[in-house]
Amino acid sequence: MSADTNQSIIQSDIHHVFHSWSVQNQLNPLAFKTGKGCVLIDYDGKEYLDFSSQLVNTNVGHQHPKVIEGIIQQAQELCTISPAHANKARGLAAQKILEVAPKGFKKIFFTNAGADAIENAIRMARLFTGRRKVLSAYRSYHGNTGAAISATGDTRRFNNEYAQDHVHFFGPYLYRSEFWSSTEQEECERALHHLRRIVECENPANIACILLESIPGTAGVFVPPKGYVQGVRQLCDEFGIMLILDEVMVGFGRTGKWFAQEHYEGVTPDLITFAKGVNSGYIPVGGVIISDAISQYFDDKYFPGGLTYSGHPLAMASIVANITAMQEEKMVENAEKMGEILAIGLKKLVQKHAIIGEVRGIGLFWAIELVSNPEQKTKFTLAEMNKVKQLCLDNGLLPFIAENRIHVAPPLIVTEAQIHQALAIYDTVLSQMA
Amino acid sequence: MSADTNQSIIQSDIHHVFHSWSVQNQLNPLAFKTGKGCVLIDYDGKEYLDFSSQLVNTNVGHQHPKVIEGIIQQAQELCTISPAHANKARGLAAQKILEVAPKGFKKIFFTNAGADAIENAIRMARLFTGRRKVLSAYRSYHGNTGAAISATGDTRRFNNEYAQDHVHFFGPYLYRSEFWSSTEQEECERALHHLRRIVECENPANIACILLESIPGTAGVFVPPKGYVQGVRQLCDEFGIMLILDEVMVGFGRTGKWFAQEHYEGVTPDLITFAKGVNSGYIPVGGVIISDAISQYFDDKYFPGGLTYSGHPLAMASIVANITAMQEEKMVENAEKMGEILAIGLKKLVQKHAIIGEVRGIGLFWAIELVSNPEQKTKFTLAEMNKVKQLCLDNGLLPFIAENRIHVAPPLIVTEAQIHQALAIYDTVLSQMA
Repeated sequence: MSADTNQSIIQSDIHHVFHSWSVQNQLNPLAFKTGKGCVLIDYDGKEYLDFSSQLVNTNVGHQHPKVIEGIIQQAQELCTISPAHANKARGLAAQKILEVAPKGFKKIFFTNAGADAIENAIRMARLFTGRRKVLSAYRSYHGNTGAAISATGDTRRFNNEYAQDHVHFFGPYLYRSEFWSSTEQEECERALHHLRRIVECENPANIACILLESIPGTAGVFVPPKGYVQGVRQLCDEFGIMLILDEVMVGFGRTGKWFAQEHYEGVTPDLITFAKGVNSGYIPVGGVIISDAISQYFDDKYFPGGLTYSGHPLAMASIVANITAMQEEKMVENAEKMGEILAIGLKKLVQKHAIIGEVRGIGLFWAIELVSNPEQKTKFTLAEMNKVKQLCLDNGLLPFIAENRIHVAPPLIVTEAQIHQALAIYDTVLSQMA
Repeated sequence: MSADTNQSIIQSDIHHVFHSWSVQNQLNPLAFKTGKGCVLIDYDGKEYLDFSSQLVNTNVGHQHPKVIEGIIQQAQELCTISPAHANKARGLAAQKILEVAPKGFKKIFFTNAGADAIENAIRMARLFTGRRKVLSAYRSYHGNTGAAISATGDTRRFNNEYAQDHVHFFGPYLYRSEFWSSTEQEECERALHHLRRIVECENPANIACILLESIPGTAGVFVPPKGYVQGVRQLCDEFGIMLILDEVMVGFGRTGKWFAQEHYEGVTPDLITFAKGVNSGYIPVGGVIISDAISQYFDDKYFPGGLTYSGHPLAMASIVANITAMQEEKMVENAEKMGEILAIGLKKLVQKHAIIGEVRGIGLFWAIELVSNPEQKTKFTLAEMNKVKQLCLDNGLLPFIAENRIHVAPPLIVTEAQIHQALAIYDTVLSQMA
């Protein structure tokens, strides 16, 4: 057992396991033996500061003792049960989520992850409205199953487009505006005008839902301009369209609020999808938070969806423990506070490094966009980003790299010292890349 | 805490949780506090003999100490990690699956459950062949996500048909033949002829894969006649079509062999999907077992699929512990042996009860088809089946009810005494229903 090395673990994994979103013979993974809080430790004992939260999911950090304890206790009582039978942890988990969710929601449908949360939210919207079409943003990612990947706007949809009646639109993104805007307000107005034109041209009476990440995440951390989400909500109301806000990546404290949508005053969606932060990914789980109206609709009508592990006891116990730990240790408040410190630090980096095209974000969810030519906004190449990644790793920081960006997303328990440590590493790396 | 009752747990669950495949105000669940082996125990201390294995997944039975221990050990070391990083339990889980899988397979792609296993197997087949169409049986169930539900043949597809290029065919089912057959051999030949005609008429050059449950499960436990699966394999070979065998329900010992396909001599599929029995559902997980050829194809080509919890450490640890326990305790051998005893008992019930239209199955996977008029094969109604279910419960047996059938699927550790106990309960219930 003690013979495990980084290399032996990596070889065992890549020889027998087929990996997500990859060319299989170009894999170059790290191996971690364990973790603690914001730190991961490999088989040489080398520590890495995790500023990725893996796939932006370990909100309570690694190996949180309360969440581990919740899982162990449930494992000793009842590991698994069919969704058809009632389960104590499941009732508690649903109540815990409703407790922190925005007002106006009634029930939780549990899935295995974010993709099937999206699948089922779309299914509910289509059934509730009796309409077929689903509108979602080009700059989005909603999961890799049939309808989820068709709803996804980014290029991962290209080889996967087998579901019907998905239509895409452009969201606001001033730095690379699709609307020739020069201010945030202009970008907002034009993005809303563009969406209205799409709705009108796709026949509003056929549109079941508009699906929006509360803050588009993997696509680039696009905090929408003031008024945008309110405008989308109004458009939905005008045409009887359901609004689905996807909080898979930004829910459960990531932005310094329980749900990112709380930043948009007056907006309540019809359905909310979640996964990741709800239990910090300790057990695969996701789900849909269902409004009173949609919940009532299905009181006397059959819902044609479901899955073997819906409301899985271990996943449920981990949700209860995770949200409880977040409450007890005031992690959402910490995310807000640390987010302000992070924001200041990142904005200082912009002043210093010409290769930063833009930083944008909120709370503990930021993107640093890297450009080789700031005038022309020329994106860093894959080779350049691979170098950025390697330099971060060399300096003991595990980054989240997406296209030409570093996404900054530490666990919500991150300390001020760790933020300064990370900022110093980004600073060093960017200096070397200049 | 000690105030928990069946009613309090049920009320908490159904008030806050939206349930799969249901009309929400018609839920009538049971509540279980814990389980042990083939037995589940409610909050009154009442014991139920679990002859459902929940959704045919608890192959090692409830609360198997070795699997619980595997989960706890991994939880204490590392609960979660991104699929991009290597993980020790993941490499071991893949090796363990390949160890018991048929020869000719190279790698495992891990998903969260069966539906996304199907999604990704279809994706691989489409990319590998460069073709779009997917053929699958009308009498089938393959999951509830976009492509999976479109591949599904049963009526759960009807409100969910948003993916493209799915075509369905009839499989063999002599008792209600679609081909006017009177013998198993005739049913086999005609089902193969029908499938060939569908392939010819759908343009073989456009067909990526034929997707088949090794034994169609939820649809009714249809053990295919001798030669059928071999015939499908030959048809696939003739036209360059990939054969995907779905072993989600029947894999990992259910039929008295590790994989049900081992009953079909000479047949090797191109892709195998699994979930459920692989870890007895203790943690949500599924996956695809990938042939050498398809694995090699992606060595230097990008695979456009993936998911946050692919190869999740806790799921992986539970797979290793589950398969190890099955090997150490010879559960597959037990399934074969107990299956023979079960078969004899079920065939005796057929002699005695005219309302049994047919029993069919293999190993520990059987269906008892109930008919009110044996001549006309009139299916038991929903109301009648609800009564069957209630009588089973009253007698201390948790049944698996599907349409007009009782599916008999105990954990693989079932004893001869438990089989006789269950047979006696079925006998009593069927006498009452006559």
